[in-house]
Amino acid sequence: MISIHNEPQPTDLGDVRVANRAVVLRHVRLHAPCSRADIAAHTGLNKATVSSLVSELIEQRLIREIGLTENRVGRPATMLVLDGEPYAALGLQIGADELVAVAIDLGGNRLLTWRRAFAAGTVSPTETLRALAALARRAIGRVTAQGRTVLGLTVGVPGLVDAAGAVPLATALGWQEVPVATELRAALREPTFAVGVDTVANLAALAEQRHGGYAGTADLVHLTGGIAVGAGIIAAGRLLRGGRGFAGEIGHLCLDPAGPDCFCGSRGCLTALVGLPAVVRRLLPDVEADGPVTDYLPELQRIVALARQDDPAVLSGLAETGRHLGRGVAVLVDLLNPEAVVLGDHLATLAPWLLPAARSGLAARAHAPGAGGCRLDASILDTAAALGGATAALATVEAGRLPAR
Amino acid sequence: MISIHNEPQPTDLGDVRVANRAVVLRHVRLHAPCSRADIAAHTGLNKATVSSLVSELIEQRLIREIGLTENRVGRPATMLVLDGEPYAALGLQIGADELVAVAIDLGGNRLLTWRRAFAAGTVSPTETLRALAALARRAIGRVTAQGRTVLGLTVGVPGLVDAAGAVPLATALGWQEVPVATELRAALREPTFAVGVDTVANLAALAEQRHGGYAGTADLVHLTGGIAVGAGIIAAGRLLRGGRGFAGEIGHLCLDPAGPDCFCGSRGCLTALVGLPAVVRRLLPDVEADGPVTDYLPELQRIVALARQDDPAVLSGLAETGRHLGRGVAVLVDLLNPEAVVLGDHLATLAPWLLPAARSGLAARAHAPGAGGCRLDASILDTAAALGGATAALATVEAGRLPAR
Repeated sequence: MISIHNEPQPTDLGDVRVANRAVVLRHVRLHAPCSRADIAAHTGLNKATVSSLVSELIEQRLIREIGLTENRVGRPATMLVLDGEPYAALGLQIGADELVAVAIDLGGNRLLTWRRAFAAGTVSPTETLRALAALARRAIGRVTAQGRTVLGLTVGVPGLVDAAGAVPLATALGWQEVPVATELRAALREPTFAVGVDTVANLAALAEQRHGGYAGTADLVHLTGGIAVGAGIIAAGRLLRGGRGFAGEIGHLCLDPAGPDCFCGSRGCLTALVGLPAVVRRLLPDVEADGPVTDYLPELQRIVALARQDDPAVLSGLAETGRHLGRGVAVLVDLLNPEAVVLGDHLATLAPWLLPAARSGLAARAHAPGAGGCRLDASILDTAAALGGATAALATVEAGRLPAR
Repeated sequence: MISIHNEPQPTDLGDVRVANRAVVLRHVRLHAPCSRADIAAHTGLNKATVSSLVSELIEQRLIREIGLTENRVGRPATMLVLDGEPYAALGLQIGADELVAVAIDLGGNRLLTWRRAFAAGTVSPTETLRALAALARRAIGRVTAQGRTVLGLTVGVPGLVDAAGAVPLATALGWQEVPVATELRAALREPTFAVGVDTVANLAALAEQRHGGYAGTADLVHLTGGIAVGAGIIAAGRLLRGGRGFAGEIGHLCLDPAGPDCFCGSRGCLTALVGLPAVVRRLLPDVEADGPVTDYLPELQRIVALARQDDPAVLSGLAETGRHLGRGVAVLVDLLNPEAVVLGDHLATLAPWLLPAARSGLAARAHAPGAGGCRLDASILDTAAALGGATAALATVEAGRLPAR
């Protein structure tokens, strides 16, 4: 978990070095290739400090030199880029009908993206975590075989996640009081690296902030689709977690007291109106004739195909879904005034048909003129939550702490 | 406006001194009386640094010595307390039927609390700002006559406030595009101190965080009553503002599409169900016979008197109001997971009758078990927004910047 200090904290020279190391790493990440002099000029750090920090970061193989450039005023300078090749982090994600593993290196390059069909809602939490651990072990094996050190692993769960990495409630999975971090650590045989747990929405929001179409946006919401609609909220550049880590639970916002039943026990919730099962049920009314759906990908592909053929019932159902979505997004916009709300999962897949109605609904319902400047768009990221999990696992190093190898 | 840096920033020795000055000031504010050695022991700063910072702060009259104590192990030490007597800050607030001015010193002691009956909704923005400036000038005169320097002034407006201190929209006042900060600065004849503008909800939340019953709580919402219901959101210890400063607009959350008309043009908004005019209309249906109400205090007192006499219609109307309130608070709780939601203004006055229904509604509607640990209570603060405005005006000094005298 990321700890946030908001009161003034005493500073000593050790902290200054850690903070300045983070500044140098960030500059290289955003502006590579760049020289030591560039770093000094842009960060305000003096050249001797930059030199000393760069030497240390090169020794740790967090950055590396790529030779001289003469394409500049003055004498040629040695250019630096992020190295990070020796380091990797892993993100996992429990989806509607699959488990996902993503590994990235320190530069954010994807080393692997694995998806494994798995209907977590139909088996016990222990079975799911066992399957997840097996997937993680194989991914770790692959990454370490390439000579990389795994710095951390974070798993995304569609439900509430507390500060200890346990899941008190995940209605979409039928989970209650599942100690995910503890069980996963045990199943991985107590790895040397940190094992984190967070909501899929929070991790997807981290991925958006770093890698998405609105990367770098300070106030941003990622709305997950799939079996549970949830909001990952970045406010003033940080994940908004709340007192117990349960923030972002927009999935059970009641939009229609006379609406369809929700698996949470209530009616007309946002999830019951725009979640993947609700959309499949609305658009493909025949689909549950053979029993409950556990594999949503083919159904989603059928919906896309029918929409592309301008099937009137499907288009009208998608417009209705878009209207509900717009009303839900308006509540997010009124409360949080984000610069962008980004749709993930099936909401991104169906965005071409959802967005027109959703954007009008948002403009009509939001209180601030022009929806407070908020853009509503589909995510360009694939497996955003797993990517965000891997990103989260790199946070310590990016904050300027040197990795223990 | 408070600027927030969330990316790593380079640090130099000047920044270190400012940060450490803030640490010392904060320690003295929270733990006075305390000695230089106490400060060093609790903050981790070394004794020489503490001594040097304390000397400077004494010279600036931000802290002062109050003599020796022998009530401790070791040799007697000189004890320190916040001084701040030479400094004051002013907060103003545009309320449902009044203008309010509050002045405090650096220690948070109230120097004055003035309320002046004024129905801002019935006159032009310019007239309101002129009346506000007149009130401010008198308050500044009083405070400076006591030999104090005014460090800043912040005014709270019930509406949207942008980063430049202008109000694009305040439906409760009928305002659109009012350059409040600019007009107020001009009306005050370009004062030497900073003039800030914020929403009443944000300022009330700052006051709660510093002076209220849940002071120090990192995740906290203050829900304003009066003519416009709004949320001031403290998340991880900071005000949540959003991209353009419009966050916290819960007043027009639609709770009942078939509900009463709202002055925003929609129906069944939280404000139209639990705002002060709505409550007066629901509980005292005869009151508008003589024309629109502009002075709500007597009506509110009548409601309290009737409730105390167990008037069945009034009690039932208050319970209904409480149920609506609970549903609105549940949305805040699901999205933000605060540790506490604190009710202000008429919602605080009526809390004894609203809270039972509101708390049950919250528990029933919030998704997280036990409402995610959130407490729902009435504010113990009077004129919270004006107090918060004065508190906000002290932020620069509290962040360790020395006042220009």
